[in-house]
Amino acid sequence: MTFLHEDFLLDTPHAQELYHNHAAGCPIIDFHNHLDAAWIASDHRFTNLTEAWLGHDHYKWRVMRAHGISEDLITGAASDEDKFMAYARCVPHTVRNPIYHWTHLSLRRYFGINEVLNEVSAKPIYAEANRQLALSTGSTRGLLSKMMVQVVCTTDDPADDLSAHEQLRQDPTLSVCPTFRPDRYLSISSESFVESLQQLGQRVDREITDFGILAEVLVSRIGDFDELGCRASDHGLTRMPLGSFDRRTAEKAFVTALSGSVPESRQQEIYCYTLLQILCREYARRGWVQQFHLGPIRNNNSRLRARLGSDAGTDSIGDYPQAESLSGFLDALDRDELLAKTILFNSNPADNALFATMVANFNDGSIPGKMQHGSGWWFLDQLDGMRDQLNTLSQMGMISHFVGMVTDSRSVLSFPRHEYFRRLICQIFGRDVAAGLLPTDIPFLGSLIRDICYNNANRYFGFGLDDSPILQP
Amino acid sequence: MTFLHEDFLLDTPHAQELYHNHAAGCPIIDFHNHLDAAWIASDHRFTNLTEAWLGHDHYKWRVMRAHGISEDLITGAASDEDKFMAYARCVPHTVRNPIYHWTHLSLRRYFGINEVLNEVSAKPIYAEANRQLALSTGSTRGLLSKMMVQVVCTTDDPADDLSAHEQLRQDPTLSVCPTFRPDRYLSISSESFVESLQQLGQRVDREITDFGILAEVLVSRIGDFDELGCRASDHGLTRMPLGSFDRRTAEKAFVTALSGSVPESRQQEIYCYTLLQILCREYARRGWVQQFHLGPIRNNNSRLRARLGSDAGTDSIGDYPQAESLSGFLDALDRDELLAKTILFNSNPADNALFATMVANFNDGSIPGKMQHGSGWWFLDQLDGMRDQLNTLSQMGMISHFVGMVTDSRSVLSFPRHEYFRRLICQIFGRDVAAGLLPTDIPFLGSLIRDICYNNANRYFGFGLDDSPILQP
Amino acid sequence: MTFLHEDFLLDTPHAQELYHNHAAGCPIIDFHNHLDAAWIASDHRFTNLTEAWLGHDHYKWRVMRAHGISEDLITGAASDEDKFMAYARCVPHTVRNPIYHWTHLSLRRYFGINEVLNEVSAKPIYAEANRQLALSTGSTRGLLSKMMVQVVCTTDDPADDLSAHEQLRQDPTLSVCPTFRPDRYLSISSESFVESLQQLGQRVDREITDFGILAEVLVSRIGDFDELGCRASDHGLTRMPLGSFDRRTAEKAFVTALSGSVPESRQQEIYCYTLLQILCREYARRGWVQQFHLGPIRNNNSRLRARLGSDAGTDSIGDYPQAESLSGFLDALDRDELLAKTILFNSNPADNALFATMVANFNDGSIPGKMQHGSGWWFLDQLDGMRDQLNTLSQMGMISHFVGMVTDSRSVLSFPRHEYFRRLICQIFGRDVAAGLLPTDIPFLGSLIRDICYNNANRYFGFGLDDSPILQP
Repeated sequence: MTFLHEDFLLDTPHAQELYHNHAAGCPIIDFHNHLDAAWIASDHRFTNLTEAWLGHDHYKWRVMRAHGISEDLITGAASDEDKFMAYARCVPHTVRNPIYHWTHLSLRRYFGINEVLNEVSAKPIYAEANRQLALSTGSTRGLLSKMMVQVVCTTDDPADDLSAHEQLRQDPTLSVCPTFRPDRYLSISSESFVESLQQLGQRVDREITDFGILAEVLVSRIGDFDELGCRASDHGLTRMPLGSFDRRTAEKAFVTALSGSVPESRQQEIYCYTLLQILCREYARRGWVQQFHLGPIRNNNSRLRARLGSDAGTDSIGDYPQAESLSGFLDALDRDELLAKTILFNSNPADNALFATMVANFNDGSIPGKMQHGSGWWFLDQLDGMRDQLNTLSQMGMISHFVGMVTDSRSVLSFPRHEYFRRLICQIFGRDVAAGLLPTDIPFLGSLIRDICYNNANRYFGFGLDDSPILQP
Repeated sequence: MTFLHEDFLLDTPHAQELYHNHAAGCPIIDFHNHLDAAWIASDHRFTNLTEAWLGHDHYKWRVMRAHGISEDLITGAASDEDKFMAYARCVPHTVRNPIYHWTHLSLRRYFGINEVLNEVSAKPIYAEANRQLALSTGSTRGLLSKMMVQVVCTTDDPADDLSAHEQLRQDPTLSVCPTFRPDRYLSISSESFVESLQQLGQRVDREITDFGILAEVLVSRIGDFDELGCRASDHGLTRMPLGSFDRRTAEKAFVTALSGSVPESRQQEIYCYTLLQILCREYARRGWVQQFHLGPIRNNNSRLRARLGSDAGTDSIGDYPQAESLSGFLDALDRDELLAKTILFNSNPADNALFATMVANFNDGSIPGKMQHGSGWWFLDQLDGMRDQLNTLSQMGMISHFVGMVTDSRSVLSFPRHEYFRRLICQIFGRDVAAGLLPTDIPFLGSLIRDICYNNANRYFGFGLDDSPILQP
Repeated sequence: MTFLHEDFLLDTPHAQELYHNHAAGCPIIDFHNHLDAAWIASDHRFTNLTEAWLGHDHYKWRVMRAHGISEDLITGAASDEDKFMAYARCVPHTVRNPIYHWTHLSLRRYFGINEVLNEVSAKPIYAEANRQLALSTGSTRGLLSKMMVQVVCTTDDPADDLSAHEQLRQDPTLSVCPTFRPDRYLSISSESFVESLQQLGQRVDREITDFGILAEVLVSRIGDFDELGCRASDHGLTRMPLGSFDRRTAEKAFVTALSGSVPESRQQEIYCYTLLQILCREYARRGWVQQFHLGPIRNNNSRLRARLGSDAGTDSIGDYPQAESLSGFLDALDRDELLAKTILFNSNPADNALFATMVANFNDGSIPGKMQHGSGWWFLDQLDGMRDQLNTLSQMGMISHFVGMVTDSRSVLSFPRHEYFRRLICQIFGRDVAAGLLPTDIPFLGSLIRDICYNNANRYFGFGLDDSPILQP
């Protein structure tokens, strides 16, 4: 079959019908990503494809390093065109990595370029993509619109001023919501903890001199975020903190950290547990969704970290114990009826079953699918990873209430990941129908697919959009 | 293909032949479940389908909660019919969960009802099933007989009086054997530990005032169970205890617990290790099979636990370290030539390979398949979970000596799980034949399939039944 | 299809083309195994098939024990013919285990025997194989030559005299390189540690009385190995040591161990960390490849260990935490620009993703594929295990730079494992092409397959062979 032909991944007639008649026309709700709201607000225009595609993409940096390309051509001083050429040389060698599909889907869906990218095709492709990026349809919003994106939830620090989001509130065609991500204030052992506190203090014009003030300020920022349409928080942790709610110990740890020392590890844990409990209770009161991205081991390469900072492509999959801390933490919230809607994302695929079954302990009958196992994320955002998550969730939970896919991306050129996901889920249901494992009730399954692609997320977060519009891409 | 058609899962001619000519006609030996022996002895009749199907089934409760159904309609005061209707509303949304297949296989195989269960079909289905449950063939034993069940091993506490089993010993058509499960006496940190000791003491008319007496009483109960046809013990643990055989420390821990305090954690561990070693040595002397169900994290939701007790559907998959404790514990028994036939069941699928290879360290050439990796259990009792276990066992051990499937169920309507398993294993072998990975020797493979479905368990436990009878279902 | 027919595993036309035109003709570079260099040097001739096939093969011993065969017929005093007959009885029951395929591939590829081995066929097969082993082509080198083996890297202790390797250096048709494996000197808690030091000391005529001397001696042996063509080191560990570089503590631990005591566990860890860092830096200076085989739990069965020593078939898959220790250890080397080319092999398949992503943190752009995730190893050296590793590496790294397969075997009859692997990788690529997930560019994919089967390892280790010779098997 032709590479990435119209029905790729859709290997049964049922899958084709489910995809083309149901999934493909759903607009996109991308409820977790790392887009820059300011770029959307200003409708940023890209100098060239390198800026739009390679500028912040540590996935691509990683494969370039593995291909033996020097750092100069990846994150260094080389020209944008040279960097693009280096990437193009690398692409044919990324076969079977999601990068290979993402690359070609981006070229096709945004630019109508159907050629395979390699050293030979690179120059004309670069020229053509740059030409299109210079058109009015090539702006940030033009590209989002081409992908039928209706909702974008960015990821924001409590110290951010949210001015871009304020500006974006008026927009009738695209909802851009902030997401509250206070990681820096939970990382009490981080070198930059005190600096983070200062930045947050400046945002609210208040000196953060004790734990109580910090908690108050963060809770007040939750209110500020809420006013600007925020519907969710997000946390990145190796694992949930283990411990007990103990303000006094948290205070001690805070004082130690503020004085420039590192609290001992049990105090750190209690600090994190206590502060997170306070925040999570506030999320519940607001009706927010709380998201937890658990498991990675970050910044493994100190040489590159010193050079490039965090998010340099040197993070990987950890093996932290997850079950006991998750159980204790979620139960403490549920016991007090302050457990918000929750999405847990795991980074280690060996934890899929653990996560899928853990969340389900805390469904309380209030709404369908209150507790969610998040889609295949980061290293798991590829065919096998997504399939494993979908199958585990199916077999151990309820796929029908799943809120579906997110790009989790820094680039506006990443939205074909939703197509990739949608084709896969249609493949999975189609194969089951073909095998007699599901009734051949395409209208029912089609509506279920539309729920997973669009309606479930819309209802779950409360974006207030109409059910199941079908657009013509 | 039609939903659950005659050959579902059997996607090669070889699979069809293996299933229809070999697997399907094997009677059922269900060597581990949670049926109530008293109900079998009295041939209990069910008021309605809700009692028979939903009454103790925390799997169904879990999906109902995930569907947003209130507890009242699950475990609460609502009428049986309302509960059934609530479940029926939920069923279409359980697609791809084993519940969906189990539900429809139960309706088909017990009641001949081929319709899909949903809100619309629910009322007539409820009426028809209830009508059949009221017939003479609708009693507990009638339903077991319809499924060709020949052996049922229940799960029993050493304090149980076993009167039902005594009554059932005379039965010529159905063997109902007790299984010795002394979990309560190993849980030294449990709140109800002292109460458990009292109940056990009452059973044997002896006050259990020290560790030595407890061990003696349990060993004497092993003898009592043995006399009533018990062939196996069973233990549910997060992981094997780590430690050493140390009666003195065990005694100290016991005294502490008896006084109402909780022994420190290392003492608990040694208590558990020592008592379990004593019991396991007795199992070996009796020629029993010892079963270990390892890995779950239980009763995660304290709100529901306070309301419903244990087994409320709030258990999930843990990530406890398993290898070192298993190795030390089994080796200590093997060293003294007191390692009984052993089946290890893991709850975390990430541990499949660990378990399959760990058991094989202790095969000693005495009988084929002495050390067994148990079938996909609990959350793993579904197509992917069973397939993974079967493939791991195949690739890392000897599938031909596998003792096969159990329902592990509280409901007499769960026996189609054996059919589900048998179809899957025929699918697996059939595909290998079709691919040229196995010789097309159907008589040999058919006898191997019958071994896995019936003969291996019969020989392994010593039930003394004839080899490979083929019944007409 | 016929059992193991010409195209087994090759289930698309693309796979068939890739295998027959590209993979099959590649000579074999077996860069990690446990062959005895002396047997190659002396061109050892086998008394019979039992010696060649069962003598050191703990994989076969394991399945024989699981089949209920007594130790006498496995490792005991029974005659070679009786042992072979016992194995033959067992073989039909190993269906779906790689042993079943390996057995029949060995019979076919070395001896042209196409029958299935079982009790009935055993005697004539034994006679025919023995007849061929007695021919000139049946010697150790004859058998290697039949399999087109060009490079063999054995596994050698620093105390070995390497005289066989010296002798083999002259050989124009077969490269036999030693691999430096100093496990014994890192196992400071082992009972035989002091004895190991003595043996090493005798080799270099120097008494090893402190840690500094040990380090010096090992570094000097690295030089000796290098002179004899060694291109790699290898380490077998449960996990990387956690700790810090601390010669003083290492020295203390060494003195304790030398005096016959066991150092406390933190000291052991630092000893191991420090010595390993010293060695790894030397590997980097030499341009060697360092290999780490991580994760097994060894010698679980003390009864069999007492009888047979290590490598008796009682090792299994462990669940040690891996991420943090790997990260810290590799980063310390990278920080000083002394991180050698590295291959990490994991024994627990649940760690595939962790390992594949961890290695990639340390690619530095110096060469393609500097950091490697090793092929499915030991218990994972079977179709599912290899497929999982290949897919994980594909999705999370770059399969195109993969250095491919090794036998890791003690037997000269194990080389069809390369064919098994090659067929599988062609299956995987063929299926992707057939599904439209890869362009139908067979010349490109064929060259990529040849790289994985041959060229990548040749370049990576620096064996200096020509690129991509295609031989006629």
